[in-house]
Amino acid sequence: MALQFSDRLAAATAARNSRVCVGLDPRPDLLPSTFSQSTDILDSVVRFCCGIIDATADYAVCVKPQAAYFEALAPEGLAAMWQVIAYARKHELLVILDAKRSDISSTAEAYARACFGKHHQGAVAEVDAVTVNPYLGSDGVEPFMRMADEVGGGIFVLAKTSNPSSGELQDLATASGTIYETVARLVNDWGASRIGECGYSSVGAVVGATYPQQLAELRKLMPHSIFLVPGYGAQGGGAGDVAGAFDRDGLGAVVNSSRGIIYAYRETGGDYQKAAADAARAMRDDLNSAIMRQSL
Amino acid sequence: MALQFSDRLAAATAARNSRVCVGLDPRPDLLPSTFSQSTDILDSVVRFCCGIIDATADYAVCVKPQAAYFEALAPEGLAAMWQVIAYARKHELLVILDAKRSDISSTAEAYARACFGKHHQGAVAEVDAVTVNPYLGSDGVEPFMRMADEVGGGIFVLAKTSNPSSGELQDLATASGTIYETVARLVNDWGASRIGECGYSSVGAVVGATYPQQLAELRKLMPHSIFLVPGYGAQGGGAGDVAGAFDRDGLGAVVNSSRGIIYAYRETGGDYQKAAADAARAMRDDLNSAIMRQSL
Repeated sequence: MALQFSDRLAAATAARNSRVCVGLDPRPDLLPSTFSQSTDILDSVVRFCCGIIDATADYAVCVKPQAAYFEALAPEGLAAMWQVIAYARKHELLVILDAKRSDISSTAEAYARACFGKHHQGAVAEVDAVTVNPYLGSDGVEPFMRMADEVGGGIFVLAKTSNPSSGELQDLATASGTIYETVARLVNDWGASRIGECGYSSVGAVVGATYPQQLAELRKLMPHSIFLVPGYGAQGGGAGDVAGAFDRDGLGAVVNSSRGIIYAYRETGGDYQKAAADAARAMRDDLNSAIMRQSL
Repeated sequence: MALQFSDRLAAATAARNSRVCVGLDPRPDLLPSTFSQSTDILDSVVRFCCGIIDATADYAVCVKPQAAYFEALAPEGLAAMWQVIAYARKHELLVILDAKRSDISSTAEAYARACFGKHHQGAVAEVDAVTVNPYLGSDGVEPFMRMADEVGGGIFVLAKTSNPSSGELQDLATASGTIYETVARLVNDWGASRIGECGYSSVGAVVGATYPQQLAELRKLMPHSIFLVPGYGAQGGGAGDVAGAFDRDGLGAVVNSSRGIIYAYRETGGDYQKAAADAARAMRDDLNSAIMRQSL
């Protein structure tokens, strides 16, 4: 039995003293000119993402490839994504695939197999965790958990997302609380039998940095769930907004930044790898300081 | 400006006198032995799906490739899917990509580009419509609509899905109705500026055949939306359950069957193409009869 995702993440967080997740959102129009001028866009994207991994691996605990940006390079974009994922794993970074998948039972199982299964032609490039949309209810989520269990993987269920319109459905009040609170209770239930030695389960939740008040509420409803917190940096969330996601030992969450790290060179000028490394290091230190202040 | 999706679907429905959508869910373990024994699974899946298209094109109005089953053939499964999509379009079938995608603005745009954009390397294999998950609210859906508008495409927003646990979130009551009713009102609003000459908009909704009462309610809330109705056949929905999705002219919906058509040979024995053709023809006639009875 592989070590559980939550325990692997806790161990890596402690060992690296980092809570940084580097979001890999490769947009051809934002790549440095040495890449964007190439005629082979797929190759450029793979080399750029691997360059980011090289530059930030010392300061991050995980990477989060965003499937959309690879799919946009159809028809073979996802094959490029799996190359990047394999490279990240070689660098001992955990990989959270941001796919926000959702479907009914047998189809959800196929998505889960795409994430956690051995690939055909012998390619082994599974991810450590995947993001899942809860709109279809338990039978759309359960296949992801079952397959994650088999390989020691995890999932992050969308609870309160970071975007401006997230409240249109997620904030609606029902007899038993808002929709995002209802999702939180489901996540807490699903995770109850999946709690690792670190005290956290392998059923996590996506909770946006842009809604710090909801983040604090959700922390209470899901005391054993790891939070994947998007919205830091470019989307407006600061370290103070996300500190509440962490416990006194600095565990319980990872905070993602995509544009703020991988396209940092567009603000600073100069080498994209140096800019990304500086941004990732600064974010790591920013988060660690905020968590330390909170624990005092 | 390309003809609007809703008008193209209405024209095709009338011309073919069919409301059948053939769901392409290629599962290697369910393929006929001539395919499953091949060592090249990707090639087998493409040949099987194209064989299904050949067999059913006369009786169907559209096909619905399910992205999950292609992604499960990672790392190159989606490339195989785009081959199948190109083949369906050559047969003048409309293509609804069942991807149930969802993400925030710029990322949703990348997904939309994967569906509706010109692909790199010059491959043109866009789809006519794509399924979208509404959990993130308007700014997660808007990029799909905007890009669909550009190419005369459409979207189908998940409202009430066909699976057993769909009610866990979708049925929850809020001050302004259930969640699926709230989604229906959003869909109706989004579609208001996108109504074609046929009277239907290009912003449709997914409404399961397995919940006929909700389907009738939703028809009233979304009078101008085309319904994509899964759950017919293998999942338990009958023609009588879905007839209410159609208007007196037999327009306003397409009904999907996946397993019941493409794996019909497993029930009947014999040639998989003949079995699929027979199942698609019987479904077409079953739906048309139910709609005619309703209109009397």
